[in-house]
Amino acid sequence: MRSILSSTIRRRTPITVSAVARANGLRFKPTVRVATSSNPQLAFPCLDRLEKKTEELSNSCAIDNITSLEGGPEPSYSKVQTGFQVFKSKVPIFLDNGGYLPEYEIAYETWGKLNKAKDNIILLHTGLSASSHAKSQPYNLKSGWWEEFIGPGKYLDTNKYFIICTNVLGGCYGSTGPSSKDPADQDYYGTRFPIITVNDMVRAQHELIKKVFKVNKIHASVGASMGGMQSLAYAIEFPNEVEKVVSISGCARSHPYSIALRHCQRQVLMSDPNWKRGFYYDNIPPHVGMKLAREIATVTYRSGPEWEYRFGRNRADESKPPALCPDFLVETYLDHAGEKFCLEYDANSLLYVSKAMDLFDLGYINRSRAAKTRLATEQEYKIQANLVEEFSVPTEPYRETVSSATITPEESLRDLQKGMERIAHKDVLVIGVESDILFPVWQQREIADVLRHNDKGGDIRYFELGNNVSNYGHDTFLLSLDHIGPPVKDFLQSKKEF
Amino acid sequence: MRSILSSTIRRRTPITVSAVARANGLRFKPTVRVATSSNPQLAFPCLDRLEKKTEELSNSCAIDNITSLEGGPEPSYSKVQTGFQVFKSKVPIFLDNGGYLPEYEIAYETWGKLNKAKDNIILLHTGLSASSHAKSQPYNLKSGWWEEFIGPGKYLDTNKYFIICTNVLGGCYGSTGPSSKDPADQDYYGTRFPIITVNDMVRAQHELIKKVFKVNKIHASVGASMGGMQSLAYAIEFPNEVEKVVSISGCARSHPYSIALRHCQRQVLMSDPNWKRGFYYDNIPPHVGMKLAREIATVTYRSGPEWEYRFGRNRADESKPPALCPDFLVETYLDHAGEKFCLEYDANSLLYVSKAMDLFDLGYINRSRAAKTRLATEQEYKIQANLVEEFSVPTEPYRETVSSATITPEESLRDLQKGMERIAHKDVLVIGVESDILFPVWQQREIADVLRHNDKGGDIRYFELGNNVSNYGHDTFLLSLDHIGPPVKDFLQSKKEF
Repeated sequence: MRSILSSTIRRRTPITVSAVARANGLRFKPTVRVATSSNPQLAFPCLDRLEKKTEELSNSCAIDNITSLEGGPEPSYSKVQTGFQVFKSKVPIFLDNGGYLPEYEIAYETWGKLNKAKDNIILLHTGLSASSHAKSQPYNLKSGWWEEFIGPGKYLDTNKYFIICTNVLGGCYGSTGPSSKDPADQDYYGTRFPIITVNDMVRAQHELIKKVFKVNKIHASVGASMGGMQSLAYAIEFPNEVEKVVSISGCARSHPYSIALRHCQRQVLMSDPNWKRGFYYDNIPPHVGMKLAREIATVTYRSGPEWEYRFGRNRADESKPPALCPDFLVETYLDHAGEKFCLEYDANSLLYVSKAMDLFDLGYINRSRAAKTRLATEQEYKIQANLVEEFSVPTEPYRETVSSATITPEESLRDLQKGMERIAHKDVLVIGVESDILFPVWQQREIADVLRHNDKGGDIRYFELGNNVSNYGHDTFLLSLDHIGPPVKDFLQSKKEF
Repeated sequence: MRSILSSTIRRRTPITVSAVARANGLRFKPTVRVATSSNPQLAFPCLDRLEKKTEELSNSCAIDNITSLEGGPEPSYSKVQTGFQVFKSKVPIFLDNGGYLPEYEIAYETWGKLNKAKDNIILLHTGLSASSHAKSQPYNLKSGWWEEFIGPGKYLDTNKYFIICTNVLGGCYGSTGPSSKDPADQDYYGTRFPIITVNDMVRAQHELIKKVFKVNKIHASVGASMGGMQSLAYAIEFPNEVEKVVSISGCARSHPYSIALRHCQRQVLMSDPNWKRGFYYDNIPPHVGMKLAREIATVTYRSGPEWEYRFGRNRADESKPPALCPDFLVETYLDHAGEKFCLEYDANSLLYVSKAMDLFDLGYINRSRAAKTRLATEQEYKIQANLVEEFSVPTEPYRETVSSATITPEESLRDLQKGMERIAHKDVLVIGVESDILFPVWQQREIADVLRHNDKGGDIRYFELGNNVSNYGHDTFLLSLDHIGPPVKDFLQSKKEF
């Protein structure tokens, strides 16, 4: 129990150094005696730790700036991934929302062997922050993010299939992204990187498939979460160059609630003073903003029932008094999750890839507009247009031209049906998880329903894992492999045998 | 469409002033031509606006410091609320987790008239950030937060009942909270304010009822959200001094998912450099952290289906390119919600009251421990103990003494049953909302089930508003009055007539 002083005694005591420290917003030393306070000053060990980290990173910047003319510490995420191959395109890619990359690189890894008929490729897509390292391989022996799902005789069977996984365009694990240098001036792209979409990502992957493997048709496009988006997008972009599509915990378009959840993460990250509008590469990375963004994200990746069972109302240390710093077990868990991630991924990549997820929409209107925009950019590029006098990125906050949705849910559904008609003849497997709040099951059903509505003869399969099977929420695809695996394996083998 | 320069032309152009501006993390002027970039630099009008606000607040601090020896601008929330009455207690309140307030004030407003029998009081409890101003009254004509719910002939009928609403202990609308001055040294409490609980809040309210109105038993304790927690807590603390209990979208104890959601808000707020560990009252308030925290909170207050219908995938201005600043309609909505709130409530109050919600647990173990702690503090106070040499607030991050919950859900339920036995003979109305993710319906059912299980003859009523009735989520009690009102009105009148 905390001790107290009676107010009578306390009022007699003069103001100590602590009042000055407080006024300056300085850290409280536990040894400082605040004899003038009715209750003890709360301690903030979580902030102490963040400040210490900033200091350490600041020192490492200083050292690095002395020893290297290049300036800036190497971000840790660039060291995290090794052993991947790189496809370099000298041909530009024109993007869905305008802008382009004059050249780009796509990091990838492979497992299994390409057969002679060249018809056994599975293109595996990643979620938001994952690298191409889905499974250990000779050049990188570390476990991958789907280690147990891929391998000889496993759900993605490397005895049968040749599996390719890429790091997405905009990422930071070997593919071109905001942390890459702009060929125009050899300086970091930062937020001069153009806005990208999920469809832009898959068009870059398609170049890899064509140019490196010289294959006309892949066996399957497979992915979960943002990987599920890519999986569908690949088929939409190249319907005749893919045999089967697997979308796990993905969607056909982002819904406003998931946009809101990602919005909060982005705004928190962008408010970190160390983010510096994306130009932090020679300075301290915005590790605090990244940590906080990851904590918010983690809440959306899991489910209430899981945490109810796992953490309950347990405090991390019942012997300690309640605190504003992490205190309940679920809080220390989130804190660790954020801490672990904060230097493992590039902040700008998080912003751009997160935004790409918001923009995901396979509806006809959106995809038609994107195609037009790309074409226009390409034409300007070809005539070497020099029209950059005025930038079209508005510097005023966007004002609502409407106060509510201008398209009814019914109209929106018809637009999606029209947009997805292109792949309604394909075999598509959709898997949803009832406890997922980020990509809720109604979105999973929507994919299957829209494809079936179009009724073009595709084998549309829909599986839903109920709360009785998995309460891991959105992360189920990483944690309940034996529930996700069997329908995937069966679907990949159906009809055609290798 | 955005214009582009070919990379050939661009590479010839020398680096401009913009590169320097970037390196310094400065704001980009729209007129600056970045001729060396493949794509235009993104604009960040949302950050421009925040910087401008900081500047304005900084200027107002400076002016205020010149014109006033008191120092610091008056926080706007202290001007927001007027026309309330104040109960001043010179008797200390001892708190559930140790610590105490040597004296305190509770702001309150009333509607209707106390009858002669003094048996028509309804004590109305607020949610996290609300003031005592539930309804307009002669001293404050502004609409209150339950304006249409209260009044002659309305659901809380002022012709029958005398309604009292307080600002909670720890709040900033007239009651003692972290923005109050500590009598020990006449300096702001800041984070020297002790950790409080919902039960501490209701014990302060109880003093008001006893000392000001000199009433032995109130007719009903009514509240929604944190108000629902208080409503139950009041009955648990004083089971024989309340006739009826109404808990709307409340709970019997906080679950880890809701703790996680509030944790994120607190961590974001505490990471704002202007928060200064709670001692910002003479400086710029942490308006950015407050805005972000409110945006996260807003996501938890509403529901996906509502936003699907209301905003859809509409962008705020379809004619503008996608941006990392608020862009989709749901984003500009969240941005406005955060902006509106950021100076309307005290940051420290938000932290303490939010923490009080996390700590809410009517289980027997928790309540017994709290009672012991309070008694021990009171005894130390009485003997004028002077034991404050060492503070017991640990300065090291809490280490998990366990890795997962140490109590099974079944044991936890039995503890709750034991804790709530005290009010199982009372009449209790519980209302839950299916679309509420913050206080999900299973928590509402839990309250009713636990009370019914104890089977002590109370009239336990349970109403659930399905998704077909309200998709407003947690905020339903503010928005669907005509669905919440009828069962409340009927329950308050049942058995006893005034």
